[in-house]
Amino acid sequence: MRYLFLFLFPIIAFAQPDSIFIRKIYDEALLRGKAYEDLRQLCKDVGPRLSGSSEAQMAVEWSERKMKSYGFDKVYLQEIKVPHWERGTKESAWLRLENGELIKLHLLALGGSIGTNGLLSGEVVEFKSLDELKSAKKNQVEGKIVFLNQPMDAAQIQTFKAYGLCYGIRGNGAVEAGKMGAKAVVIRSLGLPVDEHPHTGSMHYEENVTRIPAGALSTKDADLLSKILKEGKTELVLEMDCRNFPDAVSYNVIAEIKGTEFQNEIITFGGHLDSWDAGEGAHDDGAGVIHCLEALRILKELKYKPKHTLRVVFFMNEENGNMGGKSYATWVKEKGEKHIAALESDRGGFAPRGFGCDGTDSQVTFLQSLAPNFKNYDLHVFEKGYGGVDIGPLKESFPGIPLFGFVPDSQRYFDFHHAPSDVFENVNKRELELGAAAIASFVYLLDKELK
Amino acid sequence: MRYLFLFLFPIIAFAQPDSIFIRKIYDEALLRGKAYEDLRQLCKDVGPRLSGSSEAQMAVEWSERKMKSYGFDKVYLQEIKVPHWERGTKESAWLRLENGELIKLHLLALGGSIGTNGLLSGEVVEFKSLDELKSAKKNQVEGKIVFLNQPMDAAQIQTFKAYGLCYGIRGNGAVEAGKMGAKAVVIRSLGLPVDEHPHTGSMHYEENVTRIPAGALSTKDADLLSKILKEGKTELVLEMDCRNFPDAVSYNVIAEIKGTEFQNEIITFGGHLDSWDAGEGAHDDGAGVIHCLEALRILKELKYKPKHTLRVVFFMNEENGNMGGKSYATWVKEKGEKHIAALESDRGGFAPRGFGCDGTDSQVTFLQSLAPNFKNYDLHVFEKGYGGVDIGPLKESFPGIPLFGFVPDSQRYFDFHHAPSDVFENVNKRELELGAAAIASFVYLLDKELK
Repeated sequence: MRYLFLFLFPIIAFAQPDSIFIRKIYDEALLRGKAYEDLRQLCKDVGPRLSGSSEAQMAVEWSERKMKSYGFDKVYLQEIKVPHWERGTKESAWLRLENGELIKLHLLALGGSIGTNGLLSGEVVEFKSLDELKSAKKNQVEGKIVFLNQPMDAAQIQTFKAYGLCYGIRGNGAVEAGKMGAKAVVIRSLGLPVDEHPHTGSMHYEENVTRIPAGALSTKDADLLSKILKEGKTELVLEMDCRNFPDAVSYNVIAEIKGTEFQNEIITFGGHLDSWDAGEGAHDDGAGVIHCLEALRILKELKYKPKHTLRVVFFMNEENGNMGGKSYATWVKEKGEKHIAALESDRGGFAPRGFGCDGTDSQVTFLQSLAPNFKNYDLHVFEKGYGGVDIGPLKESFPGIPLFGFVPDSQRYFDFHHAPSDVFENVNKRELELGAAAIASFVYLLDKELK
Repeated sequence: MRYLFLFLFPIIAFAQPDSIFIRKIYDEALLRGKAYEDLRQLCKDVGPRLSGSSEAQMAVEWSERKMKSYGFDKVYLQEIKVPHWERGTKESAWLRLENGELIKLHLLALGGSIGTNGLLSGEVVEFKSLDELKSAKKNQVEGKIVFLNQPMDAAQIQTFKAYGLCYGIRGNGAVEAGKMGAKAVVIRSLGLPVDEHPHTGSMHYEENVTRIPAGALSTKDADLLSKILKEGKTELVLEMDCRNFPDAVSYNVIAEIKGTEFQNEIITFGGHLDSWDAGEGAHDDGAGVIHCLEALRILKELKYKPKHTLRVVFFMNEENGNMGGKSYATWVKEKGEKHIAALESDRGGFAPRGFGCDGTDSQVTFLQSLAPNFKNYDLHVFEKGYGGVDIGPLKESFPGIPLFGFVPDSQRYFDFHHAPSDVFENVNKRELELGAAAIASFVYLLDKELK
């Protein structure tokens, strides 16, 4: 009888083995999924979790305990050093019109900014882009507060492209304005809707350039300020007591199921555990870490025995330093591990559209060969694309490694990104669960197909 | 020079004429769009608009005025007769436990139901499907309140499929329970999330079957009731003073741009203006009518001169009778008009995924041939599918006509469908605008390509 079974099994299995297993993955995610409740806990029981903060430490503790509760083969921490910046408790902005009238604005300091040391006020000078600022004369800017008012281009179908086009005003605004003697810089928030939520995010300073405070106004306030400036001069009054602290100890949090054939060949997938301190980091990147945790849980629950070691990493410090990603890539190489592929989820918990591949043409062709497995699950995007910030450094440690990025629908991402509105309530349960199922299925196919 | 131009023009035009015009359509929708503000007005200045209600009349007035403001070639009304049912002012449900404890539930009467004539109470008997009810013994049901507790199947990737599988408990529950002598029927709401919002919708009665009141409980309350029934008996106490009135006069609202070559050959596209009275009918189907209105506005704004007559119809009464769709199909045939294609948007204002075709194989092949035009706009679904309830009757008047359905992402639709949560705030601006752009582009291609 044993031989008969051996003979029969491939026939059954070859019928549509992947489609049967992938269907089981989706059933587990949609009918018995833990993703939504796990995300609720991360958002509500832990909260926002900026690198170096107490909340980030609690997030590490929560993650390790949660991973252990799922009974993976191994759960452990990688100790790293991270930047530590705190927003403080004072963060306000007013317009003081020429007639003395005051208008309160919605402001968030940009991450890494110095404070204002009490009230700071100055005349506002507006520029529509970083290039426009750079080509201004120094006396137009000196002693003033620079207002960089470049709206994200709503005509871009992929919202990440619109974000990329504006990124410079946030990342480099303080340096460029500082070079020209500005007192401070405020930017139009990098968000698509015109609303009252300011969006924070990282900025940087440079050696030998005077450091000036940097903040973001809500898009609605940016429109208002621009309108007022068309009518005449106005002053901006700022107070921010944010500041930088010495680097802190923190951790990447790691869980794995050991490979049955190639234990030292690793497929890493993850997102980042840290988040900005406004909101709850629900889409960015609570959804991403929960996607990957849930994917590993599902594979374990379905008793899948991977050939390669499957490893979930909750990276720390993507938002302002990427020390988690950098340290991980160095550490695993030093340990002599071989990484054969990596995937990141860091574009929110929206309805899945597919996967992108940062790799060679043949790696992209391999990605495209997986598309038929996802036809019944409404995924259509299988193309060259970006992997993710956290997994990026793996390229240096493992030249030739394919990096994959999970691609959910991008239309709503910049409603919430780095804003107080990035809360659990703005994540849809089914969309989150479908993301976890897509990633579990993808990792399963990688494990099966990769040589 | 003229000849030279004639010679050159096709070369430029053939380069990528559609992609240039379609890009203009998207720019207009995303940068200068009116869809979001128009939907706000329809939801907030008019409100929910059940057939026969004063709000439905105001919606007709609003729509006609709005269409005229856009300066289309022709704006007019088609008079029709519609059912008129009103929810009334009393609508409550309690559980009375065996120890006398009362628990208030979230109830909505189903559209078309009779009232309870004061308080109605009875022992509850639960069934998991209509089939389970039908195969019960009469003495299990007689004199009781039937509770149809069939959850939508969350494992279905396409949520409309899950809806279709449950539709019977709402549409036929009162008839089947009435046949067996039940006092009333309550169903588990046809909604995917487990929450406190009941979802209403149409039901029907049959000649010679006793009419009994019918309502829907929120999914959360359905779970609670089911749990209590596992522990022992319980009574449900209902009050509903909803009732039916004589048919009312109402209107389809119509706008068109005349064809330059084939004026009597018409491409009709639309959605339904009526909505259920809970919520604001924002996704169902405010989004659909606004999609189509905006599509026609965009084509006019871009000075497009269609070969065929392009006609937008805001159908009345899709929700409980489809008198708008039926009357329209008869009326246009009587007028001797020729309809060459129709499209409907009635699946919400979510991110576009593509279009379906209810037609012959060659019509589906034609649909698929349009796909490359939408590659840059992230639309991937071009397949055989459903058109829509309102345009369905056109098939009888114009045998062979292809009917197209706009397909947005379906994951969130049954969070809001027929529920108090179907409000403007739950429609995303970009997602709505992208839908209008997709439809404008599609109608443009139909006009250009259809013989």
